[in-house]
Amino acid sequence: MRAVVLLSGGLDSATVLAMARAGGRDCYALSLRYGQRHDAELHAAARIAATLGATRHEIIEIDLSRFGGSALTDASIAVPETPSAPGVIPLTYVPARNTIMLSIALGWAEVLDAEEIHFGANAIDYSGYPDCRPEYVAAFQQMAALATRAGVEGRPVRVCTPIIGMTKAEIIREGVRLGLDYALCVSCYQADDQGRGCGRCDACRIRRQGFAAAGVADPTRYQPG
Amino acid sequence: MRAVVLLSGGLDSATVLAMARAGGRDCYALSLRYGQRHDAELHAAARIAATLGATRHEIIEIDLSRFGGSALTDASIAVPETPSAPGVIPLTYVPARNTIMLSIALGWAEVLDAEEIHFGANAIDYSGYPDCRPEYVAAFQQMAALATRAGVEGRPVRVCTPIIGMTKAEIIREGVRLGLDYALCVSCYQADDQGRGCGRCDACRIRRQGFAAAGVADPTRYQPG
Repeated sequence: MRAVVLLSGGLDSATVLAMARAGGRDCYALSLRYGQRHDAELHAAARIAATLGATRHEIIEIDLSRFGGSALTDASIAVPETPSAPGVIPLTYVPARNTIMLSIALGWAEVLDAEEIHFGANAIDYSGYPDCRPEYVAAFQQMAALATRAGVEGRPVRVCTPIIGMTKAEIIREGVRLGLDYALCVSCYQADDQGRGCGRCDACRIRRQGFAAAGVADPTRYQPG
Repeated sequence: MRAVVLLSGGLDSATVLAMARAGGRDCYALSLRYGQRHDAELHAAARIAATLGATRHEIIEIDLSRFGGSALTDASIAVPETPSAPGVIPLTYVPARNTIMLSIALGWAEVLDAEEIHFGANAIDYSGYPDCRPEYVAAFQQMAALATRAGVEGRPVRVCTPIIGMTKAEIIREGVRLGLDYALCVSCYQADDQGRGCGRCDACRIRRQGFAAAGVADPTRYQPG
C-alpha cells in the first residue's frame, strides 16, 4: 500500500516513517523548504528517507517567508528561548504551514493513487499549535474527501496520525524499538549547519525532556558554548 | 476590510477581484506559478491586480510539475480539445490545486489578519472539478477555522465564493457592469506568449459561449490559423 509521509527531518516525523515502513507501506516522503531558518533539517530528512528505505523523497520549495509572521520564516522575529504561557500560540507557529504541507501531500497522493497520508502531528508534548489537534486533522480529511477525484470516486485518502496521542517519551521508545537512530534527526528551530541544536528553544527542550523521560540515551549534538 | 483574493489571470477570478474592490475591500491578490504550461495568465494577473487597485500582488512559486498527473503541469499529457463526458473529471484537473492555493491564501490571510479569502470557484459552467463545489468550499472553511490562530481566537476566516452559483454569462455581465475590461484576462490552458487563446480547449470554449450568452462583444484574442 502506498503512503505519502510528511518528513520534516525532526524526531516525530522520522518515527512516523519508521512506523509506516514497519507496517509494510511503500513510502513517498515529502519535505518542504518553506523559508525556514536553516537547511539542516532538510539534509536530515534526506538521510532519514534513504536510511529507512523510502521509495522516493521529494523536497518541494515554497517561500512562505514572503508572507513573514513567524519566528521560523522571518529573520526579524527571534526564536523564543523560554516556553510560551499555557494557551498561548508561540511565535514559532508558521501560519497554515501544516495545512499547506498536507495539501501538497494530498496532491501527490492523488497522482500516486496513494491511499494514505502519514502526518507526525502530536497533541501531547506539542507547542500549542492549532494545526496539530485531532479535530483539525479530522476536518482536513473531510475536506480532502470532497476535494479530490479519489474522494469523488469513493476512495478518499486517509490522513493517519499514528503518534498524535503519544507522549514524546512513548514516541522515542517506539522509534528505538524499531531501530531508528535518532542521531539522524534534527529538531532544533535554529540548528547550525552541522545540524547541532541550540539547546534552548522549545523544540530542543521538549526533545531533551523526552529522552530523559524515556530513559533512553540522548544522541542529540548541541552547539558548543 | 482586508481580503486575500485568489487571482489566476482568468475571467472568473478577475471578476471576483472587481466585485471585492467594488465592495470596498482592501485586496491582497495571490497568484500561483505551479508549473502551468505558460506564464501568460500570470502576466495577466499582474495587469489585472494593478488595474483594479489591489493593495499588493504576490506570485508564489510551487512546482507541482514534480508530481505530474495533469495536462496542465505534465508536458507528456496533451490538453484535450473536445469536452469531457458528463461526470468525468477532465485531464486538465490539477490534483489538489485549489486546496493548495486556498491553503497558501489561508497562511497569508492569517499573517495579514485578513477576515476574508475570495475565491472564484464556479459550480455552473465549470469543467467538472471536484474542488469547485460549494460543499468542498464549506469543508475547507470548517478546516481553516480549526487550523489557525484566528480560528482558535474566535475570528475564523470566511471563504467567499461570490460567483459560485452564477453562469458564465452572469459573471461576464457583472464584470462589464463594474467596468472590468476582459481583454486583460487570459483563460486559455495553452495560450501563446502574447496571451492569445487556442480557441479549442475547454477554457476557450466555455469563455466564448459565455460572451455569446451574455450578449457582450468578446474581446478575446485568438492565435492565428
